[in-house]
Amino acid sequence: MRPHEEHKAKGPQRASFWVVTVSTSRFEAAKSGHSYTDESGDVAVRMIEAAGHRVAGRSLIKDDVVMIRSVLMDLLKRDDVDAVVFTGGTGIARSDVTVEAVRPLLDKEIDGFGDIFRLESYREVGTAAIMSRALAGIINGKLVVALPGSPNAVEVGLRIILPEVPHILYLARL
Amino acid sequence: MRPHEEHKAKGPQRASFWVVTVSTSRFEAAKSGHSYTDESGDVAVRMIEAAGHRVAGRSLIKDDVVMIRSVLMDLLKRDDVDAVVFTGGTGIARSDVTVEAVRPLLDKEIDGFGDIFRLESYREVGTAAIMSRALAGIINGKLVVALPGSPNAVEVGLRIILPEVPHILYLARL
Amino acid sequence: MRPHEEHKAKGPQRASFWVVTVSTSRFEAAKSGHSYTDESGDVAVRMIEAAGHRVAGRSLIKDDVVMIRSVLMDLLKRDDVDAVVFTGGTGIARSDVTVEAVRPLLDKEIDGFGDIFRLESYREVGTAAIMSRALAGIINGKLVVALPGSPNAVEVGLRIILPEVPHILYLARL
Amino acid sequence: MRPHEEHKAKGPQRASFWVVTVSTSRFEAAKSGHSYTDESGDVAVRMIEAAGHRVAGRSLIKDDVVMIRSVLMDLLKRDDVDAVVFTGGTGIARSDVTVEAVRPLLDKEIDGFGDIFRLESYREVGTAAIMSRALAGIINGKLVVALPGSPNAVEVGLRIILPEVPHILYLARL
Amino acid sequence: MRPHEEHKAKGPQRASFWVVTVSTSRFEAAKSGHSYTDESGDVAVRMIEAAGHRVAGRSLIKDDVVMIRSVLMDLLKRDDVDAVVFTGGTGIARSDVTVEAVRPLLDKEIDGFGDIFRLESYREVGTAAIMSRALAGIINGKLVVALPGSPNAVEVGLRIILPEVPHILYLARL
Amino acid sequence: MRPHEEHKAKGPQRASFWVVTVSTSRFEAAKSGHSYTDESGDVAVRMIEAAGHRVAGRSLIKDDVVMIRSVLMDLLKRDDVDAVVFTGGTGIARSDVTVEAVRPLLDKEIDGFGDIFRLESYREVGTAAIMSRALAGIINGKLVVALPGSPNAVEVGLRIILPEVPHILYLARL
Repeated sequence: MRPHEEHKAKGPQRASFWVVTVSTSRFEAAKSGHSYTDESGDVAVRMIEAAGHRVAGRSLIKDDVVMIRSVLMDLLKRDDVDAVVFTGGTGIARSDVTVEAVRPLLDKEIDGFGDIFRLESYREVGTAAIMSRALAGIINGKLVVALPGSPNAVEVGLRIILPEVPHILYLARL
Repeated sequence: MRPHEEHKAKGPQRASFWVVTVSTSRFEAAKSGHSYTDESGDVAVRMIEAAGHRVAGRSLIKDDVVMIRSVLMDLLKRDDVDAVVFTGGTGIARSDVTVEAVRPLLDKEIDGFGDIFRLESYREVGTAAIMSRALAGIINGKLVVALPGSPNAVEVGLRIILPEVPHILYLARL
Repeated sequence: MRPHEEHKAKGPQRASFWVVTVSTSRFEAAKSGHSYTDESGDVAVRMIEAAGHRVAGRSLIKDDVVMIRSVLMDLLKRDDVDAVVFTGGTGIARSDVTVEAVRPLLDKEIDGFGDIFRLESYREVGTAAIMSRALAGIINGKLVVALPGSPNAVEVGLRIILPEVPHILYLARL
Repeated sequence: MRPHEEHKAKGPQRASFWVVTVSTSRFEAAKSGHSYTDESGDVAVRMIEAAGHRVAGRSLIKDDVVMIRSVLMDLLKRDDVDAVVFTGGTGIARSDVTVEAVRPLLDKEIDGFGDIFRLESYREVGTAAIMSRALAGIINGKLVVALPGSPNAVEVGLRIILPEVPHILYLARL
Repeated sequence: MRPHEEHKAKGPQRASFWVVTVSTSRFEAAKSGHSYTDESGDVAVRMIEAAGHRVAGRSLIKDDVVMIRSVLMDLLKRDDVDAVVFTGGTGIARSDVTVEAVRPLLDKEIDGFGDIFRLESYREVGTAAIMSRALAGIINGKLVVALPGSPNAVEVGLRIILPEVPHILYLARL
Repeated sequence: MRPHEEHKAKGPQRASFWVVTVSTSRFEAAKSGHSYTDESGDVAVRMIEAAGHRVAGRSLIKDDVVMIRSVLMDLLKRDDVDAVVFTGGTGIARSDVTVEAVRPLLDKEIDGFGDIFRLESYREVGTAAIMSRALAGIINGKLVVALPGSPNAVEVGLRIILPEVPHILYLARL
């Protein structure tokens, strides 16, 4: 086995994820008791489970730096969470703050994830890809991922990161 | 009234504080049911109340970046907290992480606080003051302060910041 | 209509550009009354107009941080400028300072632009692409772009950004 | 003569200053044709001239990053300006942006100026000094200074920096 | 000849390289007199020479920030070294510190190298490429490159940078 | 014994220093075989020894980033060096690069040292103190100090840091 294969084999084959949807409009809808759909969150759950991992829970929050950091910090303290996936709030509008909220908290950024995500987005949506960002990194031995809020982007992002989760968690816990 | 006086008068004369003690040894003692004293936290409470403010609550946590950020984020979401005071973990040892945990989260640092704190520490303890740090800043309209863990340093720090709290909160909420 | 299409439709279909050529040699030629050509600037003007936008004006400046920032700040104050395109000074030589001058002034960088530009450059010129940089970002609701000084690179860069200008300006003004 | 004295002697004994008042309220008053006073700017002019230097001109602008940077860049290009003094916008309110606008543009910060300014402010106004900031630095061989908007703070700041102007300009031009 | 070709022609066609292997396990093996292989370093030497350049020497060091910086600084002072190639220590584990050690020392980063390296890695190894980083930059007119520790990654990285070495050194020495 | 006293008592009472003089003019003089004096270095040696510590050696280098970093890295690897003191190159002229060379390499800065140094300089030389900088920090459990090149400044700086050396080294090695 080559080192890469070996690391993958040693990492947890079945990790526990938490999916956080960042969307002010859905949050307000939920608060006022209106129905809402969260297609991106649903896609994330489906793909994570299809990859053999477990979804320990989901949250819905606003596009707000304090809320994003608060939910992230709480999840990092839980023993039953290995990885946190945010969807939404990664664009270039002033109200998009997910990347800004998460990046300064990372112990180490997995910088290649954003690059490969962009490359695949470019193949899917063409030049509009310049406006979408994705982020992955490690905090305290756990994986944190931030993806755009469209179902398609969530799919592109998870297709890239899910196969590497055992390897990443193995390295993160060294 | 000069602007400075006017701002002071407009700010909340009676603010609500939360005192967070950062100390791995006390945290472990508390966890194992041993008794412990928290003289610095007690000094903080006494001085805050003597200045006419209210202490809404106290917490005791470890010297751990995630715990510090987690408790801070939770407090920032509470309506009954205007200001958070950390004591402990501001020194130069590797295990001292309070300043490192808090600084990147500030919307705006009140940079003069650290300077004046050092100046007063120097008067009190001489050259040992080069090793003590203090920090104050604003997040989401609230005041966050980090002070060293010695009762004396807490006293020096609060003597400087307490008289300015109404003014700072007035400006922070503009 | 999907959100992306909708944003594009809501943004200004006809934006007003200013093209700034950064080239010490051309600047000196112009100053001493010698004739000079500015093929890259010409390409930019032609492509911007072909995309249905308007070129409000052009400037020629030296590879100088203060001049670059000065012309940019002046253009950002004008009501008739929605977007500024710099060509030249983006390489790795010590005298190349356009990216260094512009980046710290951005409110938000459109980080994907540089990536996709590099990818397309790589397809065009092969490994030499590692030395070319491009930058796009937003200041005060306006788009700022910096491209290398070769006509070919200008073409590659504008082919990527021009289709997204209505969308970017829509998001930048939110 | 010791080196310090020598440098002072070699620097320009009579430098040319420009005074920029940063104040949204005064700017709006001036724009609507209302009368306004600018005591801080007046104090600056008087002290600069009393120190044997020349005031080449004055400007009045809003608390706005682009305006501050624009006026600064224009002044840096003028042959008849050796030093620029801003007054106003250096506090901790969200609208105070002078320090944030100027600092990233400095070639080298004269970091001691802020410290000594704070020390002297503390002596003058006590703990309120924690909220006032001042900045000095060099761009392209010229001196840039940012002071709070109160006449008293301008006096404190200029009392510190004016005696060192020949020395600073000598070093800045090396 | 186009400018790019011209620069290439003017740069040194035969540059002098130093290859540094960063690997704690190999370093410890060597120290205790055990035999070890350094396939990545061997690949680097072979490719550099095949490209017509010279390998002035090789070093073997630990994954240690001070050792990496120390060997780099010593090599930068030598007249017979134009370029330094590190292999190893560029991953996302806590013990991987080569990129962290080298990046803050660069005068200018050749940012496109990391991008194109990732793109080519992605083609070779698929999604595992998100975890590999590569870096190139200039210090004092010399080229510094950091590549992952696998022979394959070294090959990918050198295939990208070697054709550009004359051009890069030409620009770096301007 | 209070914690501060206890730490002091536990740290090495007799540390081993290396004194590095940063001065292009002296370096050139030495190189061409001319005699030169190094009063600042002499003051440093005398004070370090008078405080009961040992001077393991001295070096003389140019105002050059690579030389400064190279000598520092070499000293950090030596078992017989606990602390490195640089004198010279800390001013605001373009050629002053000691602080710029050392600061990015620090594991942790002892930020209070610069402040107290400035305060004491201000008392000694008045407003000229705004132009002098001093720096102290920790790398790999060792103390690194950078002081201005005048004998007087060296004296001021060492008077502040020498009494704290056992305490600093105790904390740095934790």
